[in-house]
Amino acid sequence: MSEPVVINIGLCGLGTVGQGVWKHLSANRADLESRLGVSLRLARASVRDLHKVRDVKVAARVLTDDPLAIANDPEIDIVCELMGGTDIAREVTLAALRLGKIVVSANKALICGHGAEIFRTARRYGGHFFFEASVAGGIPIIKALREGLVANQFPRIYGILNGTCNYIITQMEQQDAPYAPVLAEAKRLGYAEADESLDVDGWDTAHKASVLAWLAHGVWVKPRQMIVEGIARLTPADFKNAATLGYGIKLLAIITRDFARNELCVRVHPTLLPEANVIANVNGVFNAISVTGDVVGTTLYSGRGAGQDATASAVISDIADAAALLKHGKGAHLIGETSAPPRKGCRPAPLESIRSRYYLRLTVRDEPGVLARVATITSRQAVSIASVIQGPAETPGAASLVLTTHESNERAIRSTLKQLAALRSVLDEPLLLRIADFD
Amino acid sequence: MSEPVVINIGLCGLGTVGQGVWKHLSANRADLESRLGVSLRLARASVRDLHKVRDVKVAARVLTDDPLAIANDPEIDIVCELMGGTDIAREVTLAALRLGKIVVSANKALICGHGAEIFRTARRYGGHFFFEASVAGGIPIIKALREGLVANQFPRIYGILNGTCNYIITQMEQQDAPYAPVLAEAKRLGYAEADESLDVDGWDTAHKASVLAWLAHGVWVKPRQMIVEGIARLTPADFKNAATLGYGIKLLAIITRDFARNELCVRVHPTLLPEANVIANVNGVFNAISVTGDVVGTTLYSGRGAGQDATASAVISDIADAAALLKHGKGAHLIGETSAPPRKGCRPAPLESIRSRYYLRLTVRDEPGVLARVATITSRQAVSIASVIQGPAETPGAASLVLTTHESNERAIRSTLKQLAALRSVLDEPLLLRIADFD
Repeated sequence: MSEPVVINIGLCGLGTVGQGVWKHLSANRADLESRLGVSLRLARASVRDLHKVRDVKVAARVLTDDPLAIANDPEIDIVCELMGGTDIAREVTLAALRLGKIVVSANKALICGHGAEIFRTARRYGGHFFFEASVAGGIPIIKALREGLVANQFPRIYGILNGTCNYIITQMEQQDAPYAPVLAEAKRLGYAEADESLDVDGWDTAHKASVLAWLAHGVWVKPRQMIVEGIARLTPADFKNAATLGYGIKLLAIITRDFARNELCVRVHPTLLPEANVIANVNGVFNAISVTGDVVGTTLYSGRGAGQDATASAVISDIADAAALLKHGKGAHLIGETSAPPRKGCRPAPLESIRSRYYLRLTVRDEPGVLARVATITSRQAVSIASVIQGPAETPGAASLVLTTHESNERAIRSTLKQLAALRSVLDEPLLLRIADFD
Repeated sequence: MSEPVVINIGLCGLGTVGQGVWKHLSANRADLESRLGVSLRLARASVRDLHKVRDVKVAARVLTDDPLAIANDPEIDIVCELMGGTDIAREVTLAALRLGKIVVSANKALICGHGAEIFRTARRYGGHFFFEASVAGGIPIIKALREGLVANQFPRIYGILNGTCNYIITQMEQQDAPYAPVLAEAKRLGYAEADESLDVDGWDTAHKASVLAWLAHGVWVKPRQMIVEGIARLTPADFKNAATLGYGIKLLAIITRDFARNELCVRVHPTLLPEANVIANVNGVFNAISVTGDVVGTTLYSGRGAGQDATASAVISDIADAAALLKHGKGAHLIGETSAPPRKGCRPAPLESIRSRYYLRLTVRDEPGVLARVATITSRQAVSIASVIQGPAETPGAASLVLTTHESNERAIRSTLKQLAALRSVLDEPLLLRIADFD
C-alpha cells in the first residue's frame, strides 16, 4: 500500500472555536484518517498572543502571530479561518483562495459582507470555500440545503439562528423576568458577549439569514435590504399576552420566496409563533430551522447553534469534505460548492410591501375614549383589528392595550404606528411584533 | 465552452417512487444541470407491464421489462434501483456495481440483508452505492450521519422511522380508536400496504435501524439480533395510561452504543417517551430522528418519511451527488462512501442484558389478592415496581392492572412475564412496553 496523502491544516485563530477544533480533531484523528484514507496534520496555528496559556496543548513551533503567513504557506492545504471579524479574516480568506487552497470558515459576518467576492475568487483560482459552521453550529444545515435537498426550490425557510437571543427569550418567558437582568445574567454565564448588540439587535441572525437565502435562492440579500429587529424591547407582559393568544415569541429569521412575483423576502424579528409549532418550543441555546421544499415538503432541523463543541463538529466536517477533495485532486467540486441555484431574475422584495399579521402593544392613559381613538387610526389605514387585550400597565394611571391585526403590510402598519405614537393618550413608543401563523 | 458531460440515468422500477423521480427530475432538470455543469438524461426505465398507462409520460422506446438490461447497458451511468424486493433488486444492483456504475437505491430491506456484499462489490469494482432515500424519506439523515456529523461518535440515535405506524398510532391516540379499524382506514387511504406486516410488525423500522447502525458504528446488526416488536397489540387504553404517566407512545428504533463495554444495542418497539420530548409530539406520517454525537451534542431531524415526493427528493439528491462524481471522474469518493466508521471490535449487545424501564398491562380477574400475587412474582425476579394504575377492563368481571417498573433487564422482565401469564388470575397475554426517559 502506498503512503496516505498527508494533508496539512492551518488554524487561523485559536480562541474558543479554534481550540475546540484542535481538541476534537486530535481526539478523533485516527477514525477520521481511516475513513478518509488520508493523514491529517494540524500543522500551524495563528494566535494574537504567542505567550498566552491555553487549554489545549499546542507546540510553540507551530504557533505564529501572523495569520497571513499560514494562508500563504505553500505547505498548508486547508486554512481554517476562525478569527472572526471581516478585515484580516477577509484578507486571509482571499489570500488562501488565490493560492487555490481550501478555506474552512465559521464567519457568517464575513460571508454576508463579502460572499460574492469570496466565491468569485474561489472559482477564479480553483480554491474552495466551506462554511458549514457559519449557520446553526453543529446542525448540518448548509449540507442539507445544498446537497440533501438539491432537488427542491424553497418557498419558505425560517428558524431560530441565534442561541444567545433564544436563551434570553426563554429565561424571560419562563422566569417572568425583564430583559435587562436576564441579559446581565447571560453575560455572567458566558452566553452573551460583553458587547451584546450583534446578537440581541438581530444582526448575527441577519448575517446567517443572508447565507441561507443565498444558498437557497442564489441572491445576496444584505441586512439593509431586510427588516431587522431585535429582542431588547420585549417585556414579560408580551410573553403573557402571546400565551393568552395561543402563541410563543421567538426571534426568527424568515426567508420566503414568492415565485409568482419572483421576489425574495428576508426578515429578522421577534415573532409570535403558534404554541403548537415545534419551533415555538425550542428553548435555551438551541437553534431550529424549518425548511419547506417544493418536492420534499417541510423538514426540520434542530440542535446546539453555537459553542465550542458544536461549532468544532461543523468545522471538522468541512475539513473532512476538504480532505476527501484533496485526496482525489482539486478538480472535483461538491454540488454547487462555489455557486448557488441560478438567480433567474429573483430580487429582494420591497420592504414596505411585506405582508404579515401584527401584534401592537401600546401603553395608554387609563381614560375613556382611548380605544376609539386608536381604532379610528387603524381603520383609516385599512388595518383591520383581530383582537384586543386590555390590562394594567406598570406605570400608575396607565393601561396596556394590545391589538392583533389581520393581514396587512409594512407600509400601512408603519404609518399606523406613527400616528398612534403621536396620540396624546399614547404614553410610550408602541411595540410592534409580527405574527407568523406557521403550522 | 466545451459541451457538458451527458449523464445517462436508468430507472429500474417505475412505480410510485420511480414516477416521482421521473416527474421531479424532468421538472427541475434545467436548474440541476446548471448547478452541476452536466447534462442529465433520463435514458431508460424498466417496468413490469410495458402496456400499463402511467401518470408520467415516458416514451415507449425508453421502456423495457428487463431491469438487468438497464444495469448492463454500457450507455447507462447511474442505475436507480426503485423496484423493491431483495432478489432481482440484488441482482440488478450487483450487476451495475460490477460494471463500476453508480447505483442509487431506496431499498432498506436490500441494504439490511445484503449491505456487506453490496459495499464490498462497490469497493472491488470501483462502483458506488448511494442510499439517501432508504431511511426517513426526504430527510437527509444519511448525509448528516456520514458527512455532516463525521467528527462524532454516536452514543445514541433514536427515532420514528415508519410513517405508516406513526399514522396508525396517532389516529388511535387522537381518536381513541382500536387498532383494527384504524389499520383498515389506513389501508383505504393508501397509508398502509395490503399486507401490512412489514410495517406494523416493526420489520421496516428494523431494516432502517440496521442501515443507521452501520452508518454510525460500522457494524451490521440483523433484525434477528435486535428486539423487534410491532404496534398491533396496542390499545386506546395504553395511550390513556401513558398520558396519565406523562408519556406518549411511539414506535421507535433505538440504537445505543456502550463505549465502555464496546456493545451496540439496536431495538425496535413501541416506546413510552416523555410527553415533553419533541419526538413524542411528531404525529401522522412524519418521521423524526434524534442523533446524539459526542462532539455536537443532540441534533434532531424531522420531515415526511415516505411518499412519492419526499422519496423522490432523496433519490434526486443522490443522483446529483452521483453526477458531481461522474463529472470529475469516478476516482473520487465521498466521505466513507463504501465504508462506515471502523468497527473496532464493537459487537451487538446480548439481548437479555438490555436494560430499560418497563410498562406492563395485565388483564386480571377482578378479585382480591391479585396485586399481591403479581407483586410477589415481580419481587422474586428483582423487578422493582415504580407505579400501579388499576382500572376497569373491557371484559366483564375483569380489571386492568398497569405496572411500570424501575430499570431492569430483558432476562428478568421476560421471566416475570412468563410467570405472570401462568397465573390463574391473569386472563390475557400480558402486554409489555418499554419506557425511554429521553429528554
